[in-house]
Amino acid sequence: MKKVRILIIGFGVIGSGVARAISEKREFISDKYGIDFEVVGIGERDGCIVCPEGIDAMEAYKLKQDGTLNKHPCWKDGVSSIDLIKGANADIVIEATPTNINSGEPGLSHMMAAFNTKKHVVTSNKGPLTIAFQKLKKTAEKNGVQFRFEAAVGGAMPVLNLVRETLQANEILSIEGILNGTCNYILTRMSTEGLPYEHVLSEAQELGIAEADPTYDVDGIDTACKLVILANAILGMNVSYKDADVTGITQISPGALKLASDDGYVIKLIGEIKDRNRPRVAPRLVPKDHPLAVGGTLNVISLRTDLAGEITVTGKGAGAIETSSSILSDLISIYKA
Amino acid sequence: MKKVRILIIGFGVIGSGVARAISEKREFISDKYGIDFEVVGIGERDGCIVCPEGIDAMEAYKLKQDGTLNKHPCWKDGVSSIDLIKGANADIVIEATPTNINSGEPGLSHMMAAFNTKKHVVTSNKGPLTIAFQKLKKTAEKNGVQFRFEAAVGGAMPVLNLVRETLQANEILSIEGILNGTCNYILTRMSTEGLPYEHVLSEAQELGIAEADPTYDVDGIDTACKLVILANAILGMNVSYKDADVTGITQISPGALKLASDDGYVIKLIGEIKDRNRPRVAPRLVPKDHPLAVGGTLNVISLRTDLAGEITVTGKGAGAIETSSSILSDLISIYKA
Repeated sequence: MKKVRILIIGFGVIGSGVARAISEKREFISDKYGIDFEVVGIGERDGCIVCPEGIDAMEAYKLKQDGTLNKHPCWKDGVSSIDLIKGANADIVIEATPTNINSGEPGLSHMMAAFNTKKHVVTSNKGPLTIAFQKLKKTAEKNGVQFRFEAAVGGAMPVLNLVRETLQANEILSIEGILNGTCNYILTRMSTEGLPYEHVLSEAQELGIAEADPTYDVDGIDTACKLVILANAILGMNVSYKDADVTGITQISPGALKLASDDGYVIKLIGEIKDRNRPRVAPRLVPKDHPLAVGGTLNVISLRTDLAGEITVTGKGAGAIETSSSILSDLISIYKA
Repeated sequence: MKKVRILIIGFGVIGSGVARAISEKREFISDKYGIDFEVVGIGERDGCIVCPEGIDAMEAYKLKQDGTLNKHPCWKDGVSSIDLIKGANADIVIEATPTNINSGEPGLSHMMAAFNTKKHVVTSNKGPLTIAFQKLKKTAEKNGVQFRFEAAVGGAMPVLNLVRETLQANEILSIEGILNGTCNYILTRMSTEGLPYEHVLSEAQELGIAEADPTYDVDGIDTACKLVILANAILGMNVSYKDADVTGITQISPGALKLASDDGYVIKLIGEIKDRNRPRVAPRLVPKDHPLAVGGTLNVISLRTDLAGEITVTGKGAGAIETSSSILSDLISIYKA
């Protein structure tokens, strides 16, 4: 049995969800792969839990739900995540702090600290990847550790590992997809119900599908960030958010959706990179029986390849347990070989 | 550079297509993975090419296209594939003889001979897998070699490697999908054009999408075989073709498709295994915006998992170059680790 000591940095919906998944799946993973994942530290904004002999991850998850994480016996008030990462005897850092696409912080510093102390990084945090992909990749390589981020694009839907582990003989020629579940939900509802944008947005906000400030989603920023990550990681490009050409969904009318539908099309917010040109996010017409025409909050990515032709994958783009599937997949991949 | 010596057994559309792909992708794969794939033997019904110092795979492909494979300088008339497998100094056997779902032969004997002489097997041949999966798996394990068959289900579409390499933390709860491109083509055309079954079948035969004897496809046999492979390999079941409940598409009328369409549905031939019950193949109603509702000759598989929810993958289910993507992926996976 290989014992792997884990730090979880950022204990919000994703971070605490991963803790729960690690706890629930510990036996399954140790039986199947001979790997025992043990959480030995949790970093939050106002302090840390440090516990070299292992933390009961389900207990930490429950304390977090109750808002009493700082009542954990190993809680240390005011200790920073950076100090936790640098000081802890751990193998791997799961970085799950909120995405900041302007500075990439605090995730960027967390990842650099992890690499420089020879720890692998698995992350769902798009910010640092959108801003400093090459720097992060090179620092990981220099330190002989791995840098994996399946959860940063498309939640549960495998994309990066799909290319890396199942399409290895292919060159990826272009990428297109629906990478934001909120926009897909809004466009799907507008189309099927004939309702205006503002109405469906309010409904999505009530359901928790859209944020109070929906800009990041509906203006296409989130889609563009994910596209930039795919460009760098899959196509070997060197682009950042500012290189993308981005249009959101706020100007789409029920009338346009109706016209499209009458002709056998739906309108979707598509992120695409064709033949290594600049990443582009814009509403596009998609034939109704095309694999990209998926409804609701689903995400979908289509890859054009030289041997396999078009390969399309669809799945849930968000949700704590769903995203933990991708994080656990990255964790297992690092240690399985 | 790791040198890998390959035998290709069965040099029809798939076998010769793989030879071509190995030739075209040799530099890409050696640059990226440090593996050099060299074909050292080719087995055909009436003889073999044996060439320990390596065969020019593209030359062999071209000779096959011209019907003059037996003019190759290393051709040995009448030498059987079994003798080639047993005698050759090779690391791996690509088994690509035609599928026989009654006896599994000659593929079954080829695979057993490969395992028993410590050679890995990569195959696209469904027959042996449908009949003797457990026996093959155990023989491979006993001999410490690998047994991989991504190409046997869904052509270019990753399914087995998708589960194995990208959804490792998940339990797979159920599987459903369109696993036969011929049936999907026929139903799609009948639905969009309002044409009767016999008319579209003739059209598909003219286009080379359906065989002269279409029974194997339209009666659901091919779909059932693929489903049985998925049941055994992904769900850990122990079933064979006779355990499946199979209905084909020959009784579907344009009227039924029209009624379905008016209600927002399409009819598709779906293979499914729910909660480890017996494999079932039957025409089913699928909502038009559901990820399974793909048109043309596409294949699609949807996996229900405990963490990731539903993950769906769509791709080309047939074609020599497309299928070689899956075979090369298996080859690389064996040697990458």
